[in-house]
Amino acid sequence: MDMTPQALLARRDQAMGAGTPLFYNEPLHLVRGEGVWLHDADGRRYLDLYNNIPVVGHANPRVVAALAGQAARHWTHSRYLDARILDYAQRLVDLHDPSIGSVVFTCTGTEANEVAMQMARIVTGGRGFVCTTAAYHGHSALVGSLTRAPRRGRPDVHAIAYPQRYRPLADGLDAAGLVRAHLDEVRAAIADFDAAGVPLAGMLVCPIFANEGLPEPLPGFLPQAARLVREAGGLLIVDEVQSGFCRTGRWWAYQGEGVVPDIVTTGKPMGNGMPMGACAARPDLVARFRAAGRYFNTFAGSPVHAAAGLAVLDEIEDRGLAAKAAAHGAWLLEALREIAINVPAIGDVRGRGLFIAIEWVHDRTTRAPDREGAVAMVNRLRDAGALIGHAGEHGNVLKIRPPLVFEREHAEYFVALFKQALERTATA
Amino acid sequence: MDMTPQALLARRDQAMGAGTPLFYNEPLHLVRGEGVWLHDADGRRYLDLYNNIPVVGHANPRVVAALAGQAARHWTHSRYLDARILDYAQRLVDLHDPSIGSVVFTCTGTEANEVAMQMARIVTGGRGFVCTTAAYHGHSALVGSLTRAPRRGRPDVHAIAYPQRYRPLADGLDAAGLVRAHLDEVRAAIADFDAAGVPLAGMLVCPIFANEGLPEPLPGFLPQAARLVREAGGLLIVDEVQSGFCRTGRWWAYQGEGVVPDIVTTGKPMGNGMPMGACAARPDLVARFRAAGRYFNTFAGSPVHAAAGLAVLDEIEDRGLAAKAAAHGAWLLEALREIAINVPAIGDVRGRGLFIAIEWVHDRTTRAPDREGAVAMVNRLRDAGALIGHAGEHGNVLKIRPPLVFEREHAEYFVALFKQALERTATA
Repeated sequence: MDMTPQALLARRDQAMGAGTPLFYNEPLHLVRGEGVWLHDADGRRYLDLYNNIPVVGHANPRVVAALAGQAARHWTHSRYLDARILDYAQRLVDLHDPSIGSVVFTCTGTEANEVAMQMARIVTGGRGFVCTTAAYHGHSALVGSLTRAPRRGRPDVHAIAYPQRYRPLADGLDAAGLVRAHLDEVRAAIADFDAAGVPLAGMLVCPIFANEGLPEPLPGFLPQAARLVREAGGLLIVDEVQSGFCRTGRWWAYQGEGVVPDIVTTGKPMGNGMPMGACAARPDLVARFRAAGRYFNTFAGSPVHAAAGLAVLDEIEDRGLAAKAAAHGAWLLEALREIAINVPAIGDVRGRGLFIAIEWVHDRTTRAPDREGAVAMVNRLRDAGALIGHAGEHGNVLKIRPPLVFEREHAEYFVALFKQALERTATA
Repeated sequence: MDMTPQALLARRDQAMGAGTPLFYNEPLHLVRGEGVWLHDADGRRYLDLYNNIPVVGHANPRVVAALAGQAARHWTHSRYLDARILDYAQRLVDLHDPSIGSVVFTCTGTEANEVAMQMARIVTGGRGFVCTTAAYHGHSALVGSLTRAPRRGRPDVHAIAYPQRYRPLADGLDAAGLVRAHLDEVRAAIADFDAAGVPLAGMLVCPIFANEGLPEPLPGFLPQAARLVREAGGLLIVDEVQSGFCRTGRWWAYQGEGVVPDIVTTGKPMGNGMPMGACAARPDLVARFRAAGRYFNTFAGSPVHAAAGLAVLDEIEDRGLAAKAAAHGAWLLEALREIAINVPAIGDVRGRGLFIAIEWVHDRTTRAPDREGAVAMVNRLRDAGALIGHAGEHGNVLKIRPPLVFEREHAEYFVALFKQALERTATA
């Protein structure tokens, strides 16, 4: 069998459909992973600074052993009693604010957001959701209605400009003024639902607006927006699929925003690869959701999910990965900011824990987004041996989000590759 | 920690919400599985005649080894190239009609039906779906709109009575007359969409109407219904989540109905536990779906999914499970029919391969469904050591659907337990 990337691509276009998403100009054919490293079929290794599913490292031996051990014992569904899934459910909710006391398990973050939105509709009797204009929360029809939604025009979704300082909503505002302007966006969305006779179900946002481009926080926005939403009869749902599990140096990003959500969704890193999602919420909300629909998710909440999920929690706690994410993330952020001083294409470097965003711009003064420049940098870094991605409202933000077993030496190695890639830009 | 069922139940109600679905009056606390057997915490063993996820047997060593081996190597997503997922995709589509040439991977059957419905809307430009009145295809908002849908009243869904002979749509019709009557249902649904200005996207049905109660086939219905749907601009989507993977003695149930669908969805048994789903379709449909939305499912189509999926296909083929399902299913069906002759509560015994349905009725003449009687029988069988479920439009149909590694000796053992349980009914 021809195993060249060209041959694999041709087979892929046929069997999975042309246009199936793929990373990098020269796609990677990966065959092995270990910790923060990925190896391709030619024996070349890459530092992984993109993947947040393998949060405790690629091929983590403790997770693999837990998974394999439980799969060899039994793997049934949640309509039988199982002690380990209860241990896992309890440990998960105990990591949240005390008001978050019950959890509905799913297989994916999309399914977790489906449950959250359905739950909000059931308990509020409302239908309308407020989200942001550059959000992505999943691929089902309902959750997908929040994807890059226009401000108005979708029947049950009104989008607001996401809070940020880099390209502010209006000129001449200080931080407090910007918060007020973004709260006015929330007020207007709610008022327009009201005028249209669409009762509010809630607001669903990523607490760090990761897909929007990980903007600098506007302190006070989220708690005050939550108050407006609740006064209008809605609930605050935070999507911690990217921001949760110690990514920002805390268990949950909402803990850094001074807000307690009514519903929290999680996904990607929960099982280090195992498809797992969860919708955690106040017990009264979960009970009303359970009573209304008898929701059952065939695969979710199985003993194998519990085994994998518990092993991930153990690894995060035993290896102190929250503190490491905070420390190594802060070091890397500072190092990249120092480099950026002399790079006109870098308009801004922002981060929280091991999640760093770099704005690629045509010009620092106009701040005009340079998507092509960002994509070129991502590909140069791939060629240099470091895997990152790009994201954001304009697709021009470098997205650096390594597994949390990332150490100082990896940060230093990345900084060296980043400098190399910049030099290659300069001489290109 | 108190491990009594009562203590586990109390913890479960708290951590996962009261009302989380659970089987049996006395719930089972399972701790081990092997082949067709499940063992509870008290060391008691049960013959599993319900679970179709562990299609090649609980804790199948080949699947566990494949899964563990690949998880220890690497576990990334489908935006990198991977040879094994292409092998799996190709092998999967090669099991279908030659017109079905591409596949979109998902994590669950719900997600597969989401993709199918979104694909049908994209390629037809339509919105409306025809389903049956007692269907279940998944728990997302879109797919859930097909759940026990009324004939009219939902904006994009019109339900039809599912084809059956036991409680016929109208009296005095022979099989051909019944087919005509059910085709008139399809015509009426399409005409009502047309009158409401809702263009048709397609018809989505389980080819054996499993949740409806596994009725006797009405030969000719499905191909002629497909023609009506296609003439009206829609597509035929068959949901093979329950009926696929040799359950009926053939790879796909549609092969027994004389119809080739445009789109086929699968789920439960694909990974013997691993959350996996797939939407297979004509390549031109998949290409248009890919082009329209850049669908990406984080967990789906990973190397570990491929490893598990390939091991399941190998086991089914190497152990000849299709032929076994046909043979042992036929034997068990006959044995149960013989028993039923003298049991007034049994109105009908139907089956295809290793999927058998037994109608529990108050009276054979009136055919009034006896849900409570069916539930009682399910619980008596659980106490006797055999796990089955109940389903159907009226909840009164015993659902017998064992892993496909079910042998003649297991069928004989079940028949003995079934007789015991009937005797206990008679003396209760």
